[in-house]
Amino acid sequence: MQIKKDHINFAVGPVLINEEILALGAEPVPYFRTPEFSALMLENERILKDLMDAPENARAVFLTGSGTASMDAVIQNVFTKDDKLLIVNGGGFGHRFCEIAEVYGIPHDEVIPEQGRTIRAEHLAPFAGKDYTAFVVNMDETSTGVLYDMDLISRFCRENGLMLVVDAISAFLSDEFSMKDMGADVVFTGSQKALAVPPGVSMMVLSQRAVDRINANKPTCYYLDLKAALKNQERGQTPWTPAVGILIQINARLNQIARDGLETERERIHAIANDFRARIKNYPFHIVSDSLSYCVTPLSPNNKAVDAHHLFEVLKDEYGIIVCPNGGELAHTVFRVGHIGHLTIEDNDALFAALDDLMRRGILLA
Amino acid sequence: MQIKKDHINFAVGPVLINEEILALGAEPVPYFRTPEFSALMLENERILKDLMDAPENARAVFLTGSGTASMDAVIQNVFTKDDKLLIVNGGGFGHRFCEIAEVYGIPHDEVIPEQGRTIRAEHLAPFAGKDYTAFVVNMDETSTGVLYDMDLISRFCRENGLMLVVDAISAFLSDEFSMKDMGADVVFTGSQKALAVPPGVSMMVLSQRAVDRINANKPTCYYLDLKAALKNQERGQTPWTPAVGILIQINARLNQIARDGLETERERIHAIANDFRARIKNYPFHIVSDSLSYCVTPLSPNNKAVDAHHLFEVLKDEYGIIVCPNGGELAHTVFRVGHIGHLTIEDNDALFAALDDLMRRGILLA
Repeated sequence: MQIKKDHINFAVGPVLINEEILALGAEPVPYFRTPEFSALMLENERILKDLMDAPENARAVFLTGSGTASMDAVIQNVFTKDDKLLIVNGGGFGHRFCEIAEVYGIPHDEVIPEQGRTIRAEHLAPFAGKDYTAFVVNMDETSTGVLYDMDLISRFCRENGLMLVVDAISAFLSDEFSMKDMGADVVFTGSQKALAVPPGVSMMVLSQRAVDRINANKPTCYYLDLKAALKNQERGQTPWTPAVGILIQINARLNQIARDGLETERERIHAIANDFRARIKNYPFHIVSDSLSYCVTPLSPNNKAVDAHHLFEVLKDEYGIIVCPNGGELAHTVFRVGHIGHLTIEDNDALFAALDDLMRRGILLA
Repeated sequence: MQIKKDHINFAVGPVLINEEILALGAEPVPYFRTPEFSALMLENERILKDLMDAPENARAVFLTGSGTASMDAVIQNVFTKDDKLLIVNGGGFGHRFCEIAEVYGIPHDEVIPEQGRTIRAEHLAPFAGKDYTAFVVNMDETSTGVLYDMDLISRFCRENGLMLVVDAISAFLSDEFSMKDMGADVVFTGSQKALAVPPGVSMMVLSQRAVDRINANKPTCYYLDLKAALKNQERGQTPWTPAVGILIQINARLNQIARDGLETERERIHAIANDFRARIKNYPFHIVSDSLSYCVTPLSPNNKAVDAHHLFEVLKDEYGIIVCPNGGELAHTVFRVGHIGHLTIEDNDALFAALDDLMRRGILLA
């Protein structure tokens, strides 16, 4: 079965992949229980920790699975029923953290900002001085394109003695952060976001405190046992056969970013996002987030007669352009335009040309 | 970091990949929440069920993870503490099933054949007429290269009213089986074995009875929740972002096999294995399995001065040939030669030429 693959892809993952990384996908996948693959994995750990500005004695592990595998693994390995989590539930991904905590019977309360809005001090105030052990947040709640105020959250955690778990799946490389400055204990991301490698691997950096907790806990899931993952990664290996090909692509990509500089990578994404946002003002949409991540822009048509999911379909089928539809209750009112991956200003040009044509055709209405 | 990738690869996964499938690895990875990707996933389900000769109303799901993800998911989703499993523990992978059952507190007993030996009727007799609910077996215990007698096991399950779970990770396509004939409730495999696609996806076929059990059970792991996987796969989707690129390669490969015929694929593997086994007789090794799978040949040097792991290293570093080392207590006495993946008789020629040279050099001793 053939799937059209030459779309200009503005999704929030999988994204467009640069040529050097794509070409690696056609090379043989080597056997991995070797010193050579171990060295590659140790280099992956070192560069990932550098890019996240990890604290002393931090460790990194790579899981074969989607970003949700990391969300799940962190909650069930770092915490127990004796903990109490404070989770920001501001959209689909915050909600997912709550569902995960429920599966493992880990007590938790929810901070619920208004839809499309960031967290402000008054949202956190009622939870100060309570018996929480950790704060859990999707730095960028990608479902609604909201970047939370990590300075505010970090300060709250320090003042209240909470551990901090940061899902940076879509924030990594798009939005600036330092694990040290945030005082974060866990930060994780996925291969198919701004890292721009095919999906299949998620990776996390863990503070010494998080590692100690993992080592003291009893694993609740065999496959997602982070104790086994940490132990194997000491020698650059994984407990089970990993997605070797994707880990090799991750290695090449981490080296690209280390070589060119993290700032250069982030500026590239910011330039694409800023160009898009300057130009979209002239079109009949409004941005439905009061705190934008550079990763993605969430848009809603001004005219209620325009269906957001229909725009996604027409752009895909008639213009070869992928934007990112929303699911659930936002499906018909919101879609998102991603700015991560191997996109160029010319790709933005193509998207705006398509929007012009949709207006001419009376499909996009003012 | 560069890893040499042009080895002739006789490992038992990742294996050599044919050109059409490799080339797909360099194509852009498409966005997947689309009718086009759904159609591909439904085709994957249909062909996988065909190739396994699945019973009526069987379902298939695809997990982003290693084969161990499927071993784990099956045990924790299909069974509960109210079940009692009978597990064949004949090597590293049988042992893994026991560890998994322990994590979830699922009662189990172990059938323990002698190392390198198959299961015979007298191994099973003590367990007849007991209160087991299911029999769990690695059809090919790859760690020692033993193919179990599935006719015997299947008969035992029917006579004692047991469900049958078959890990066919390395048996799929190598060794003949029919899910219907075995009366199996679950059969699973991985992308990087005889399917010869990069690692990162494992896939299972479930009988109606297994599906009913999954739907009645409470998920114990969020990521590996098969109820969610089954529900999403009804429309050709997955709960979380899957390894889209690998699933597209799986689709192409399943179509290759469906087009050429399963028998043709199996005969290709059998020809490679038979050629190897006829020729290895002239070398100072003995085969350490009394029941060979076509997937792999486990070998031990006749001369105790020859270290199996050293042979692996010299073949890799000096001849560009990968054989499969053993871990644990067999590391220095056993290595394995796989016959799956895109291997040819000429690759066997190269391996034997290297063995000849090792004998000339006094590294392989009679």
